[in-house]
Amino acid sequence: MNYCSHCGQPVSFVIPPGDDRPRYLCQACGTIHYQNPRIVAGTLPVSGDQVLLCKRAIAPRLGYWTLPAGFMENGESTPAAAARETREEACAEVDLQGLYTLINLPHINQVFMIFRGTLLGEFAAGPESLEVALFREDEIPWDELAFPTIERTLRHFFSDRQRNAFPLHVSDITPEDRERYFGSA
Amino acid sequence: MNYCSHCGQPVSFVIPPGDDRPRYLCQACGTIHYQNPRIVAGTLPVSGDQVLLCKRAIAPRLGYWTLPAGFMENGESTPAAAARETREEACAEVDLQGLYTLINLPHINQVFMIFRGTLLGEFAAGPESLEVALFREDEIPWDELAFPTIERTLRHFFSDRQRNAFPLHVSDITPEDRERYFGSA
Repeated sequence: MNYCSHCGQPVSFVIPPGDDRPRYLCQACGTIHYQNPRIVAGTLPVSGDQVLLCKRAIAPRLGYWTLPAGFMENGESTPAAAARETREEACAEVDLQGLYTLINLPHINQVFMIFRGTLLGEFAAGPESLEVALFREDEIPWDELAFPTIERTLRHFFSDRQRNAFPLHVSDITPEDRERYFGSA
Repeated sequence: MNYCSHCGQPVSFVIPPGDDRPRYLCQACGTIHYQNPRIVAGTLPVSGDQVLLCKRAIAPRLGYWTLPAGFMENGESTPAAAARETREEACAEVDLQGLYTLINLPHINQVFMIFRGTLLGEFAAGPESLEVALFREDEIPWDELAFPTIERTLRHFFSDRQRNAFPLHVSDITPEDRERYFGSA
């Protein structure tokens, strides 16, 4: 951020009066430009003993497999965002059965939320997917998953499925967790 | 948003190529300025048969009672944000026991998350609180609560406490829910 989005003057990165951390502050009009984490919402669509994955047609991690998920938009609820992303990426509808993983990624200012659900009807690759397919546990392409959040969600699911109980799992992804996927920067 | 925060030129509010909704787009440098919901994180601090509430020293809803909660910052996890807000508003530490309510407020682009926990040690009013106090169920100032999210979280808690089971509750707040607190705009 270089300029104030309200008045167009250059901003400073300083600690505003009464605050405890630096913000982008416009000295001309006084606007403080707060920056906050974004939510990535998606689903784990289940069909019998299979789960649905999407092969990414876009960067980052083009060609790797992911669950349908993406940035939540203004005006949406979290389940609505998860359902929309599933529709966009996998042309699929899911009967949502609750929030399943909430994974914090503080080093990239994201909170990842996956809702578990039952896949309803057909599916197909949306514009951001090269391919959409169903996988049994022994078919999951563990070495070709796009993100550590996806691997963690799938490992929770196959473990929880053995006792048919699917509680919410809250955890953090560290920069080290991400290195296996993206290499060190 | 009137100006591009990257290059300082005026922005347009248009649907970018390949997108499906209007965004603030800079025609000069091509930057698309996405806007996304923000997370409000906080805690429900429990001490025996009492819960901790804070009387707000700031607008909105100055003088009304709330749970310690506030906007999650970049670089934090959701539990860390909840704990920080509790420290700031109630000078209190809480042993967190899981995410308890996740309430979507799509009409104001917020997602509210409360973690339930055990209050540890002392507490006091932080700079954003006029007063911090413990309340038994029959002492809760139901008509003086700050927000519908707070009322809903407390009602879930006192109901769940009867069977000592505290599952996550996911729900939405509608504009009508808020009218009782803020009046119609």
